[in-house]
Amino acid sequence: MCSSDLTGVADGPAAARLTDSAGVSLARAMSGAGLDPAGLGPDGERLGRIGAYVELHIEQGRGLAGLGAAVGVAEGIWPHGRWRLEFTGRADHAGTTALADRRDPMLPCAAAVQAARQAAGAHGALATVSKVITEPGGANGINSAVSAWLDARAPDAAALAAVTGEVRAQAQAAADEHRVTLAVRRESFSPPVSFDPVLRGRVAAAVARACGDPPELPTGAGHDAGVLAARLPAAMLFVRNPTGVSHAPDEHATAADCAAGVDALAAVLADLAGPR
Amino acid sequence: MCSSDLTGVADGPAAARLTDSAGVSLARAMSGAGLDPAGLGPDGERLGRIGAYVELHIEQGRGLAGLGAAVGVAEGIWPHGRWRLEFTGRADHAGTTALADRRDPMLPCAAAVQAARQAAGAHGALATVSKVITEPGGANGINSAVSAWLDARAPDAAALAAVTGEVRAQAQAAADEHRVTLAVRRESFSPPVSFDPVLRGRVAAAVARACGDPPELPTGAGHDAGVLAARLPAAMLFVRNPTGVSHAPDEHATAADCAAGVDALAAVLADLAGPR
Repeated sequence: MCSSDLTGVADGPAAARLTDSAGVSLARAMSGAGLDPAGLGPDGERLGRIGAYVELHIEQGRGLAGLGAAVGVAEGIWPHGRWRLEFTGRADHAGTTALADRRDPMLPCAAAVQAARQAAGAHGALATVSKVITEPGGANGINSAVSAWLDARAPDAAALAAVTGEVRAQAQAAADEHRVTLAVRRESFSPPVSFDPVLRGRVAAAVARACGDPPELPTGAGHDAGVLAARLPAAMLFVRNPTGVSHAPDEHATAADCAAGVDALAAVLADLAGPR
Repeated sequence: MCSSDLTGVADGPAAARLTDSAGVSLARAMSGAGLDPAGLGPDGERLGRIGAYVELHIEQGRGLAGLGAAVGVAEGIWPHGRWRLEFTGRADHAGTTALADRRDPMLPCAAAVQAARQAAGAHGALATVSKVITEPGGANGINSAVSAWLDARAPDAAALAAVTGEVRAQAQAAADEHRVTLAVRRESFSPPVSFDPVLRGRVAAAVARACGDPPELPTGAGHDAGVLAARLPAAMLFVRNPTGVSHAPDEHATAADCAAGVDALAAVLADLAGPR
Protein backbone atom coordinates (compact mmCIF):
# COMPACT_ATOMS: atom_id res chain seq x y z
CA MET A 1 0.00 0.00 0.00
CA CYS A 2 2.79 2.43 1.01
CA SER A 3 3.54 4.56 -2.03
CA SER A 4 0.04 4.37 -3.55
CA ASP A 5 -1.52 5.41 -0.26
CA LEU A 6 1.08 8.11 0.49
CA THR A 7 0.55 9.78 -2.88
CA GLY A 8 -3.22 9.30 -3.03
CA VAL A 9 -2.98 7.06 -6.13
CA ALA A 10 -4.98 4.57 -4.08
CA ASP A 11 -8.31 5.76 -2.67
CA GLY A 12 -7.81 5.11 1.05
CA PRO A 13 -11.44 4.78 2.17
CA ALA A 14 -12.26 2.59 -0.86
CA ALA A 15 -9.21 0.44 -0.15
CA ALA A 16 -10.26 0.06 3.49
CA ARG A 17 -13.50 -1.52 2.33
CA LEU A 18 -11.85 -4.10 0.02
CA THR A 19 -12.09 -7.66 1.28
CA ASP A 20 -9.93 -10.75 0.87
CA SER A 21 -11.32 -14.10 -0.27
CA ALA A 22 -12.44 -14.82 3.32
CA GLY A 23 -14.48 -11.57 3.40
CA VAL A 24 -12.15 -9.74 5.81
CA SER A 25 -11.91 -6.03 4.97
CA LEU A 26 -8.57 -4.20 4.95
CA ALA A 27 -9.93 -1.95 7.72
CA ARG A 28 -10.70 -4.96 9.91
CA ALA A 29 -7.34 -6.59 9.16
CA MET A 30 -5.53 -3.32 10.02
CA SER A 31 -7.46 -2.93 13.28
CA GLY A 32 -6.70 -6.56 14.12
CA ALA A 33 -2.99 -5.84 13.66
CA GLY A 34 -3.14 -2.76 15.89
CA LEU A 35 -3.17 -0.21 13.02
CA ASP A 36 -5.66 2.62 12.57
CA PRO A 37 -7.43 2.45 9.17
CA ALA A 38 -8.30 6.14 9.56
CA GLY A 39 -4.61 6.78 8.95
CA LEU A 40 -5.02 5.68 5.32
CA GLY A 41 -4.88 8.42 2.71
CA PRO A 42 -2.37 10.79 1.11
CA ASP A 43 0.18 12.55 3.30
CA GLY A 44 1.53 15.65 1.53
CA GLU A 45 3.62 16.74 4.48
CA ARG A 46 5.53 13.45 4.60
CA LEU A 47 5.86 13.41 0.81
CA GLY A 48 7.26 16.97 0.87
CA ARG A 49 10.12 15.84 3.06
CA ILE A 50 11.43 13.42 0.38
CA GLY A 51 13.93 15.05 -1.97
CA ALA A 52 14.58 11.96 -4.11
CA TYR A 53 13.72 8.27 -3.91
CA VAL A 54 16.18 5.58 -4.98
CA GLU A 55 15.08 1.94 -4.73
CA LEU A 56 17.48 -1.01 -4.71
CA HIS A 57 15.87 -4.22 -5.97
CA ILE A 58 16.87 -7.59 -7.36
CA GLU A 59 16.29 -7.69 -11.10
CA GLN A 60 13.24 -9.78 -11.94
CA GLY A 61 14.55 -11.11 -15.21
CA ARG A 62 17.89 -12.15 -16.73
CA GLY A 63 18.83 -8.84 -18.38
CA LEU A 64 21.91 -8.15 -16.24
CA ALA A 65 22.94 -11.82 -16.28
CA GLY A 66 22.91 -11.68 -20.08
CA LEU A 67 25.02 -8.50 -20.08
CA GLY A 68 27.45 -9.82 -17.45
CA ALA A 69 26.82 -6.87 -15.10
CA ALA A 70 26.28 -7.04 -11.32
CA VAL A 71 24.31 -3.79 -11.07
CA GLY A 72 22.07 -1.85 -13.47
CA VAL A 73 19.96 1.30 -13.52
CA ALA A 74 16.26 1.27 -14.39
CA GLU A 75 15.22 3.21 -17.44
CA GLY A 76 11.49 2.99 -16.80
CA ILE A 77 8.56 0.71 -16.09
CA TRP A 78 6.41 -0.82 -18.78
CA PRO A 79 2.73 0.06 -18.76
CA HIS A 80 0.84 -2.85 -17.28
CA GLY A 81 -2.51 -3.92 -15.97
CA ARG A 82 -4.82 -6.72 -14.92
CA TRP A 83 -8.06 -7.68 -16.62
CA ARG A 84 -10.70 -10.05 -15.29
CA LEU A 85 -12.39 -12.24 -17.90
CA GLU A 86 -15.67 -13.73 -16.74
CA PHE A 87 -16.99 -16.59 -18.87
CA THR A 88 -20.57 -17.58 -18.07
CA GLY A 89 -21.93 -20.84 -19.45
CA ARG A 90 -24.34 -23.38 -18.04
CA ALA A 91 -23.84 -26.05 -15.39
CA ASP A 92 -24.52 -29.57 -16.71
CA HIS A 93 -23.64 -33.20 -16.09
CA ALA A 94 -20.29 -34.07 -17.68
CA GLY A 95 -21.34 -37.69 -18.22
CA THR A 96 -24.57 -37.18 -20.09
CA THR A 97 -24.74 -33.78 -21.80
CA ALA A 98 -24.16 -34.11 -25.54
CA LEU A 99 -21.27 -31.98 -26.84
CA ALA A 100 -23.67 -30.00 -29.01
CA ASP A 101 -25.86 -29.14 -26.01
CA ARG A 102 -23.03 -27.79 -23.87
CA ARG A 103 -22.20 -24.22 -22.96
CA ASP A 104 -18.87 -24.98 -21.33
CA PRO A 105 -17.04 -21.85 -20.12
CA MET A 106 -13.76 -23.73 -19.67
CA LEU A 107 -13.25 -23.99 -23.43
CA PRO A 108 -13.09 -20.24 -24.20
CA CYS A 109 -11.03 -19.80 -21.03
CA ALA A 110 -8.47 -22.24 -22.47
CA ALA A 111 -8.50 -20.25 -25.71
CA ALA A 112 -7.78 -17.05 -23.74
CA VAL A 113 -4.84 -18.69 -21.94
CA GLN A 114 -3.28 -19.61 -25.26
CA ALA A 115 -4.16 -16.28 -26.93
CA ALA A 116 -2.34 -14.43 -24.14
CA ARG A 117 0.90 -16.26 -24.81
CA GLN A 118 0.57 -15.89 -28.57
CA ALA A 119 -0.22 -12.15 -28.48
CA ALA A 120 2.63 -11.46 -26.05
CA GLY A 121 5.05 -13.21 -28.37
CA ALA A 122 3.80 -11.25 -31.36
CA HIS A 123 4.26 -7.85 -29.68
CA GLY A 124 7.46 -8.31 -27.63
CA ALA A 125 5.29 -8.15 -24.51
CA LEU A 126 4.36 -10.34 -21.54
CA ALA A 127 0.91 -11.76 -20.92
CA THR A 128 -0.08 -14.41 -18.42
CA VAL A 129 -3.18 -16.14 -17.12
CA SER A 130 -2.47 -17.88 -13.79
CA LYS A 131 -5.44 -17.20 -11.55
CA VAL A 132 -8.46 -19.19 -12.70
CA ILE A 133 -11.56 -19.77 -10.58
CA THR A 134 -14.10 -22.39 -11.64
CA GLU A 135 -17.72 -22.54 -10.45
CA PRO A 136 -18.71 -25.01 -9.18
CA GLY A 137 -15.51 -26.77 -10.28
CA GLY A 138 -16.73 -30.35 -9.78
CA ALA A 139 -14.82 -33.18 -11.43
CA ASN A 140 -17.94 -34.67 -13.07
CA GLY A 141 -19.87 -31.52 -14.00
CA ILE A 142 -19.64 -28.74 -16.54
CA ASN A 143 -18.92 -25.37 -14.91
CA SER A 144 -21.53 -22.62 -14.83
CA ALA A 145 -18.80 -19.98 -14.87
CA VAL A 146 -15.04 -19.56 -15.06
CA SER A 147 -13.13 -16.39 -14.17
CA ALA A 148 -9.59 -15.84 -15.45
CA TRP A 149 -7.23 -12.96 -14.76
CA LEU A 150 -5.03 -11.63 -17.56
CA ASP A 151 -1.80 -9.93 -16.50
CA ALA A 152 -0.35 -7.98 -19.45
CA ARG A 153 2.69 -5.72 -19.79
CA ALA A 154 4.36 -4.20 -22.83
CA PRO A 155 7.14 -1.76 -23.79
CA ASP A 156 4.60 0.91 -24.71
CA ALA A 157 0.89 1.65 -24.50
CA ALA A 158 0.21 0.74 -28.14
CA ALA A 159 1.75 -2.72 -27.77
CA LEU A 160 -0.17 -3.27 -24.55
CA ALA A 161 -3.44 -2.29 -26.25
CA ALA A 162 -2.65 -4.67 -29.13
CA VAL A 163 -2.02 -7.57 -26.74
CA THR A 164 -5.16 -7.05 -24.68
CA GLY A 165 -7.21 -6.43 -27.82
CA GLU A 166 -6.08 -9.71 -29.39
CA VAL A 167 -6.71 -11.72 -26.23
CA ARG A 168 -10.18 -10.19 -25.91
CA ALA A 169 -11.02 -10.88 -29.55
CA GLN A 170 -9.92 -14.52 -29.42
CA ALA A 171 -11.64 -15.11 -26.10
CA GLN A 172 -14.83 -13.57 -27.47
CA ALA A 173 -14.71 -15.69 -30.65
CA ALA A 174 -14.29 -18.88 -28.60
CA ALA A 175 -17.05 -17.79 -26.21
CA ASP A 176 -19.40 -17.20 -29.15
CA GLU A 177 -18.55 -20.62 -30.60
CA HIS A 178 -19.51 -22.29 -27.32
CA ARG A 179 -22.53 -20.04 -26.57
CA VAL A 180 -20.79 -18.66 -23.51
CA THR A 181 -20.99 -15.00 -22.51
CA LEU A 182 -17.84 -13.02 -21.79
CA ALA A 183 -17.50 -9.91 -19.64
CA VAL A 184 -14.10 -8.18 -19.38
CA ARG A 185 -13.29 -5.76 -16.55
CA ARG A 186 -10.03 -3.87 -16.11
CA GLU A 187 -9.09 -4.26 -12.47
CA SER A 188 -5.89 -2.23 -12.44
CA PHE A 189 -3.75 -0.21 -14.81
CA SER A 190 -0.37 1.49 -14.43
CA PRO A 191 0.74 3.87 -17.19
CA PRO A 192 4.35 3.80 -18.42
CA VAL A 193 6.99 5.37 -16.15
CA SER A 194 10.21 7.01 -17.33
CA PHE A 195 12.47 7.73 -14.41
CA ASP A 196 13.75 11.32 -13.99
CA PRO A 197 16.63 11.69 -16.50
CA VAL A 198 18.66 14.06 -14.31
CA LEU A 199 18.52 11.78 -11.27
CA ARG A 200 19.14 8.75 -13.53
CA GLY A 201 22.32 10.42 -14.82
CA ARG A 202 23.59 11.14 -11.30
CA VAL A 203 22.78 7.59 -10.22
CA ALA A 204 24.58 6.11 -13.24
CA ALA A 205 27.66 8.26 -12.62
CA ALA A 206 27.78 7.33 -8.91
CA VAL A 207 27.34 3.62 -9.68
CA ALA A 208 30.10 3.84 -12.32
CA ARG A 209 32.50 5.17 -9.69
CA ALA A 210 31.50 2.40 -7.24
CA CYS A 211 31.41 -0.66 -9.46
CA GLY A 212 31.71 0.13 -13.16
CA ASP A 213 29.46 1.55 -15.86
CA PRO A 214 25.92 0.24 -15.27
CA PRO A 215 23.65 -0.78 -18.12
CA GLU A 216 20.19 0.79 -18.29
CA LEU A 217 17.22 -1.51 -18.62
CA PRO A 218 13.42 -1.40 -18.40
CA THR A 219 11.23 -3.57 -16.19
CA GLY A 220 7.73 -4.93 -16.44
CA ALA A 221 7.12 -4.96 -12.69
CA GLY A 222 5.43 -2.28 -10.60
CA HIS A 223 7.53 -0.69 -7.82
CA ASP A 224 7.18 2.05 -5.21
CA ALA A 225 9.70 4.05 -7.28
CA GLY A 226 7.29 3.93 -10.21
CA VAL A 227 4.44 5.34 -8.13
CA LEU A 228 6.58 8.03 -6.50
CA ALA A 229 8.08 9.04 -9.88
CA ALA A 230 4.86 10.96 -10.58
CA ARG A 231 5.54 13.23 -7.58
CA LEU A 232 9.32 13.50 -7.13
CA PRO A 233 12.61 12.44 -8.73
CA ALA A 234 12.87 8.66 -8.44
CA ALA A 235 15.31 6.03 -9.67
CA MET A 236 15.99 2.32 -9.31
CA LEU A 237 19.05 0.12 -9.07
CA PHE A 238 18.87 -3.55 -10.02
CA VAL A 239 21.09 -6.38 -8.77
CA ARG A 240 21.81 -9.29 -11.11
CA ASN A 241 19.45 -12.29 -10.87
CA PRO A 242 21.21 -15.35 -12.33
CA THR A 243 18.02 -17.28 -13.14
CA GLY A 244 15.53 -14.41 -13.47
CA VAL A 245 13.18 -16.26 -11.11
CA SER A 246 11.19 -13.78 -9.06
CA HIS A 247 8.35 -13.76 -6.55
CA ALA A 248 9.03 -17.45 -6.03
CA PRO A 249 11.14 -19.50 -3.62
CA ASP A 250 14.00 -19.89 -6.11
CA GLU A 251 14.62 -16.12 -6.40
CA HIS A 252 18.23 -15.38 -5.45
CA ALA A 253 21.32 -13.26 -6.03
CA THR A 254 24.92 -13.98 -5.04
CA ALA A 255 26.31 -12.37 -1.89
CA ALA A 256 28.94 -10.59 -4.00
CA ASP A 257 26.29 -9.04 -6.26
CA CYS A 258 24.21 -7.98 -3.27
CA ALA A 259 27.31 -6.29 -1.83
CA ALA A 260 27.91 -4.53 -5.16
CA GLY A 261 24.30 -3.31 -5.04
CA VAL A 262 24.83 -1.93 -1.55
CA ASP A 263 28.08 -0.21 -2.62
CA ALA A 264 26.24 1.31 -5.58
CA LEU A 265 23.38 2.57 -3.41
CA ALA A 266 25.84 3.98 -0.86
CA ALA A 267 27.65 5.86 -3.64
CA VAL A 268 24.36 7.26 -4.91
CA LEU A 269 23.30 8.38 -1.42
CA ALA A 270 26.70 9.96 -0.76
CA ASP A 271 26.35 11.87 -4.00
CA LEU A 272 22.75 12.97 -3.31
CA ALA A 273 23.58 13.95 0.29
CA GLY A 274 26.57 16.00 -0.85
CA PRO A 275 26.67 19.45 -2.48
CA ARG A 276 24.79 19.79 -5.79
CA MET B 1 -21.68 -44.73 -1.05
CA CYS B 2 -24.65 -47.06 -0.81
CA SER B 3 -24.31 -49.59 -3.61
CA SER B 4 -20.50 -49.50 -3.80
CA ASP B 5 -20.23 -50.07 -0.07
CA LEU B 6 -22.96 -52.72 0.04
CA THR B 7 -21.30 -54.78 -2.68
CA GLY B 8 -17.73 -54.21 -1.54
CA VAL B 9 -16.80 -52.41 -4.77
CA ALA B 10 -15.63 -49.62 -2.49
CA ASP B 11 -13.03 -50.52 0.14
CA GLY B 12 -14.82 -49.42 3.33
CA PRO B 13 -11.83 -48.84 5.61
CA ALA B 14 -9.94 -47.05 2.82
CA ALA B 15 -13.00 -44.91 2.11
CA ALA B 16 -13.30 -44.04 5.80
CA ARG B 17 -9.83 -42.52 5.67
CA LEU B 18 -10.50 -40.31 2.61
CA THR B 19 -10.63 -36.61 3.41
CA ASP B 20 -12.46 -33.68 1.86
CA SER B 21 -10.68 -30.46 0.88
CA ALA B 22 -10.92 -29.25 4.49
CA GLY B 23 -9.10 -32.38 5.71
CA VAL B 24 -12.17 -33.97 7.34
CA SER B 25 -12.16 -37.77 6.96
CA LEU B 26 -15.30 -39.67 5.99
CA ALA B 27 -15.07 -41.50 9.33
CA ARG B 28 -15.09 -38.20 11.24
CA ALA B 29 -17.92 -36.79 9.12
CA MET B 30 -19.98 -39.97 9.70
CA SER B 31 -19.35 -39.87 13.45
CA GLY B 32 -20.28 -36.18 13.50
CA ALA B 33 -23.60 -37.08 11.85
CA GLY B 34 -24.31 -39.83 14.37
CA LEU B 35 -23.31 -42.73 12.07
CA ASP B 36 -20.88 -45.51 12.90
CA PRO B 37 -18.00 -45.74 10.37
CA ALA B 38 -17.40 -49.32 11.52
CA GLY B 39 -20.66 -50.13 9.72
CA LEU B 40 -18.94 -49.50 6.37
CA GLY B 41 -18.20 -52.58 4.28
CA PRO B 42 -20.02 -55.19 2.18
CA ASP B 43 -23.21 -56.75 3.54
CA GLY B 44 -23.88 -60.07 1.82
CA GLU B 45 -26.92 -60.83 3.96
CA ARG B 46 -28.68 -57.64 2.96
CA LEU B 47 -27.63 -58.06 -0.67
CA GLY B 48 -29.03 -61.62 -0.65
CA ARG B 49 -32.47 -60.33 0.22
CA ILE B 50 -32.70 -58.30 -3.02
CA GLY B 51 -34.26 -60.26 -5.91
CA ALA B 52 -34.03 -57.50 -8.51
CA TYR B 53 -33.23 -53.78 -8.47
CA VAL B 54 -35.11 -51.31 -10.67
CA GLU B 55 -34.08 -47.65 -10.51
CA LEU B 56 -36.29 -44.77 -11.70
CA HIS B 57 -34.27 -41.70 -12.72
CA ILE B 58 -34.66 -38.55 -14.76
CA GLU B 59 -32.78 -38.91 -18.05
CA GLN B 60 -29.60 -36.87 -18.01
CA GLY B 61 -29.65 -35.99 -21.67
CA ARG B 62 -32.23 -35.23 -24.36
CA GLY B 63 -32.57 -38.73 -25.84
CA LEU B 64 -36.23 -39.25 -24.84
CA ALA B 65 -37.11 -35.65 -25.69
CA GLY B 66 -35.75 -36.22 -29.20
CA LEU B 67 -37.79 -39.45 -29.53
CA GLY B 68 -40.98 -37.90 -28.13
CA ALA B 69 -41.27 -40.51 -25.36
CA ALA B 70 -42.07 -39.86 -21.69
CA VAL B 71 -40.37 -43.00 -20.35
CA GLY B 72 -37.48 -45.16 -21.55
CA VAL B 73 -35.54 -48.22 -20.46
CA ALA B 74 -31.77 -48.20 -19.96
CA GLU B 75 -29.74 -50.48 -22.17
CA GLY B 76 -26.46 -50.07 -20.30
CA ILE B 77 -23.94 -47.65 -18.90
CA TRP B 78 -20.95 -46.40 -20.83
CA PRO B 79 -17.52 -47.17 -19.41
CA HIS B 80 -16.23 -44.04 -17.73
CA GLY B 81 -13.51 -42.74 -15.47
CA ARG B 82 -11.68 -39.81 -14.03
CA TRP B 83 -8.02 -38.99 -14.60
CA ARG B 84 -5.96 -36.40 -12.73
CA LEU B 85 -3.42 -34.53 -14.83
CA GLU B 86 -0.72 -32.81 -12.79
CA PHE B 87 1.33 -30.23 -14.65
CA THR B 88 4.42 -29.07 -12.78
CA GLY B 89 6.25 -25.98 -14.00
CA ARG B 90 8.07 -23.20 -12.14
CA ALA B 91 6.72 -20.25 -10.20
CA ASP B 92 7.90 -16.92 -11.61
CA HIS B 93 6.94 -13.25 -11.78
CA ALA B 94 4.41 -12.67 -14.56
CA GLY B 95 5.64 -9.12 -15.13
CA THR B 96 9.31 -9.79 -15.67
CA THR B 97 10.00 -13.37 -16.78
CA ALA B 98 10.78 -13.53 -20.50
CA LEU B 99 8.49 -15.87 -22.44
CA ALA B 100 11.44 -18.05 -23.38
CA ASP B 101 12.43 -18.47 -19.71
CA ARG B 102 9.00 -19.62 -18.56
CA ARG B 103 7.81 -23.04 -17.55
CA ASP B 104 4.14 -22.16 -17.31
CA PRO B 105 1.93 -25.18 -16.45
CA MET B 106 -1.26 -23.31 -17.41
CA LEU B 107 -0.40 -23.55 -21.12
CA PRO B 108 -0.37 -27.37 -21.42
CA CYS B 109 -3.43 -27.46 -19.16
CA ALA B 110 -5.25 -25.26 -21.69
CA ALA B 111 -4.14 -27.64 -24.44
CA ALA B 112 -5.57 -30.58 -22.47
CA VAL B 113 -8.92 -28.80 -22.04
CA GLN B 114 -9.19 -28.33 -25.78
CA ALA B 115 -7.86 -31.82 -26.60
CA ALA B 116 -10.58 -33.36 -24.43
CA ARG B 117 -13.34 -31.69 -26.42
CA GLN B 118 -11.70 -32.52 -29.74
CA ALA B 119 -11.08 -36.21 -28.91
CA ALA B 120 -14.62 -36.65 -27.57
CA GLY B 121 -16.04 -35.26 -30.81
CA ALA B 122 -13.86 -37.56 -32.89
CA HIS B 123 -14.96 -40.72 -31.06
CA GLY B 124 -18.66 -40.10 -30.34
CA ALA B 125 -17.73 -39.82 -26.68
CA LEU B 126 -17.86 -37.26 -23.86
CA ALA B 127 -14.82 -35.67 -22.24
CA THR B 128 -14.71 -32.72 -19.90
CA VAL B 129 -12.22 -30.77 -17.82
CA SER B 130 -14.02 -28.64 -15.21
CA LYS B 131 -12.04 -28.96 -12.01
CA VAL B 132 -8.76 -27.08 -12.25
CA ILE B 133 -6.60 -26.16 -9.27
CA THR B 134 -3.79 -23.63 -9.68
CA GLU B 135 -0.84 -23.26 -7.33
CA PRO B 136 -0.30 -20.63 -6.10
CA GLY B 137 -2.87 -19.08 -8.47
CA GLY B 138 -1.81 -15.45 -8.01
CA ALA B 139 -2.94 -12.89 -10.58
CA ASN B 140 0.60 -11.55 -11.19
CA GLY B 141 2.63 -14.74 -10.98
CA ILE B 142 3.26 -17.83 -13.07
CA ASN B 143 1.95 -20.99 -11.40
CA SER B 144 4.29 -23.63 -10.06
CA ALA B 145 1.68 -26.33 -10.74
CA VAL B 146 -1.78 -26.85 -12.17
CA SER B 147 -3.96 -29.93 -11.62
CA ALA B 148 -6.82 -30.71 -13.98
CA TRP B 149 -9.33 -33.53 -13.81
CA LEU B 150 -10.44 -35.26 -17.02
CA ASP B 151 -13.87 -36.88 -16.96
CA ALA B 152 -14.22 -39.21 -19.96
CA ARG B 153 -17.01 -41.58 -21.08
CA ALA B 154 -17.54 -43.50 -24.30
CA PRO B 155 -19.85 -46.09 -25.87
CA ASP B 156 -17.20 -48.80 -25.47
CA ALA B 157 -13.83 -49.42 -23.89
CA ALA B 158 -11.90 -48.97 -27.14
CA ALA B 159 -13.39 -45.53 -27.78
CA LEU B 160 -12.70 -44.53 -24.18
CA ALA B 161 -9.07 -45.62 -24.49
CA ALA B 162 -8.75 -43.67 -27.73
CA VAL B 163 -10.11 -40.49 -26.10
CA THR B 164 -7.91 -40.66 -23.02
CA GLY B 165 -4.90 -41.63 -25.14
CA GLU B 166 -5.33 -38.61 -27.39
CA VAL B 167 -5.82 -36.20 -24.50
CA ARG B 168 -2.72 -37.59 -22.79
CA ALA B 169 -0.63 -37.36 -25.95
CA GLN B 170 -1.62 -33.76 -26.68
CA ALA B 171 -1.17 -32.71 -23.06
CA GLN B 172 2.27 -34.34 -23.03
CA ALA B 173 3.31 -32.65 -26.27
CA ALA B 174 2.27 -29.23 -24.92
CA ALA B 175 3.98 -29.96 -21.60
CA ASP B 176 7.21 -30.85 -23.42
CA GLU B 177 6.99 -27.67 -25.49
CA HIS B 178 6.79 -25.58 -22.32
CA ARG B 179 9.31 -27.64 -20.28
CA VAL B 180 6.57 -28.67 -17.88
CA THR B 181 6.31 -32.19 -16.43
CA LEU B 182 3.07 -34.12 -16.62
CA ALA B 183 1.92 -36.95 -14.37
CA VAL B 184 -1.38 -38.70 -15.10
CA ARG B 185 -3.17 -40.73 -12.44
CA ARG B 186 -6.43 -42.65 -12.95
CA GLU B 187 -8.59 -41.82 -9.96
CA SER B 188 -11.63 -43.91 -10.80
CA PHE B 189 -12.85 -46.25 -13.49
CA SER B 190 -16.18 -47.97 -14.13
CA PRO B 191 -16.30 -50.70 -16.78
CA PRO B 192 -19.24 -50.87 -19.19
CA VAL B 193 -22.53 -52.22 -17.81
CA SER B 194 -25.17 -54.11 -19.83
CA PHE B 195 -28.33 -54.51 -17.83
CA ASP B 196 -29.75 -58.04 -17.44
CA PRO B 197 -31.55 -58.81 -20.74
CA VAL B 198 -34.31 -60.96 -19.13
CA LEU B 199 -35.19 -58.30 -16.55
CA ARG B 200 -34.92 -55.62 -19.23
CA GLY B 201 -37.45 -57.50 -21.36
CA ARG B 202 -39.92 -57.84 -18.46
CA VAL B 203 -39.47 -54.14 -17.60
CA ALA B 204 -40.06 -53.09 -21.22
CA ALA B 205 -43.19 -55.23 -21.45
CA ALA B 206 -44.61 -53.86 -18.19
CA VAL B 207 -43.86 -50.27 -19.21
CA ALA B 208 -45.49 -50.89 -22.59
CA ARG B 209 -48.71 -51.93 -20.82
CA ALA B 210 -48.58 -48.83 -18.55
CA CYS B 211 -47.65 -46.08 -20.96
CA GLY B 212 -46.66 -47.32 -24.38
CA ASP B 213 -43.62 -49.02 -25.94
CA PRO B 214 -40.50 -47.56 -24.30
CA PRO B 215 -37.33 -46.82 -26.30
CA GLU B 216 -34.07 -48.31 -25.02
CA LEU B 217 -31.10 -45.97 -24.55
CA PRO B 218 -27.63 -45.97 -23.02
CA THR B 219 -26.33 -43.48 -20.47
CA GLY B 220 -22.94 -42.05 -19.64
CA ALA B 221 -23.68 -41.58 -15.96
CA GLY B 222 -22.92 -43.92 -13.09
CA HIS B 223 -25.88 -45.22 -11.04
CA ASP B 224 -26.55 -47.60 -8.16
CA ALA B 225 -28.20 -49.91 -10.70
CA GLY B 226 -24.90 -50.10 -12.60
CA VAL B 227 -23.00 -51.15 -9.49
CA LEU B 228 -25.63 -53.68 -8.39
CA ALA B 229 -25.85 -55.13 -11.93
CA ALA B 230 -22.63 -57.04 -11.20
CA ARG B 231 -24.37 -58.94 -8.37
CA LEU B 232 -28.07 -59.24 -9.24
CA PRO B 233 -30.57 -58.50 -12.04
CA ALA B 234 -30.84 -54.72 -12.33
CA ALA B 235 -32.63 -52.31 -14.65
CA MET B 236 -33.34 -48.62 -15.02
CA LEU B 237 -36.24 -46.50 -16.16
CA PHE B 238 -35.66 -42.96 -17.43
CA VAL B 239 -38.13 -40.06 -17.41
CA ARG B 240 -37.92 -37.47 -20.18
CA ASN B 241 -35.74 -34.40 -19.50
CA PRO B 242 -36.82 -31.59 -21.87
CA THR B 243 -33.51 -29.70 -21.75
CA GLY B 244 -31.13 -32.52 -20.82
CA VAL B 245 -29.72 -30.33 -18.02
CA SER B 246 -28.62 -32.49 -15.13
CA HIS B 247 -26.85 -32.12 -11.80
CA ALA B 248 -27.59 -28.41 -12.01
CA PRO B 249 -30.39 -26.14 -10.77
CA ASP B 250 -32.18 -26.13 -14.15
CA GLU B 251 -32.73 -29.94 -14.15
CA HIS B 252 -36.46 -30.65 -14.46
CA ALA B 253 -39.17 -32.93 -15.82
CA THR B 254 -42.89 -32.18 -16.25
CA ALA B 255 -45.33 -33.40 -13.60
CA ALA B 256 -47.08 -35.51 -16.29
CA ASP B 257 -43.83 -37.25 -17.26
CA CYS B 258 -42.97 -37.87 -13.60
CA ALA B 259 -46.40 -39.45 -13.15
CA ALA B 260 -45.81 -41.62 -16.23
CA GLY B 261 -42.52 -42.74 -14.70
CA VAL B 262 -44.26 -43.67 -11.46
CA ASP B 263 -46.95 -45.59 -13.39
CA ALA B 264 -44.23 -47.43 -15.31
CA LEU B 265 -42.34 -48.34 -12.13
CA ALA B 266 -45.56 -49.48 -10.45
CA ALA B 267 -46.33 -51.74 -13.42
CA VAL B 268 -42.81 -53.19 -13.28
CA LEU B 269 -43.06 -53.85 -9.53
CA ALA B 270 -46.51 -55.44 -9.90
CA ASP B 271 -45.09 -57.74 -12.55
CA LEU B 272 -41.97 -58.62 -10.51
CA ALA B 273 -44.01 -59.18 -7.34
CA GLY B 274 -46.44 -61.42 -9.21
CA PRO B 275 -45.99 -65.06 -10.29
CA ARG B 276 -43.06 -65.75 -12.64
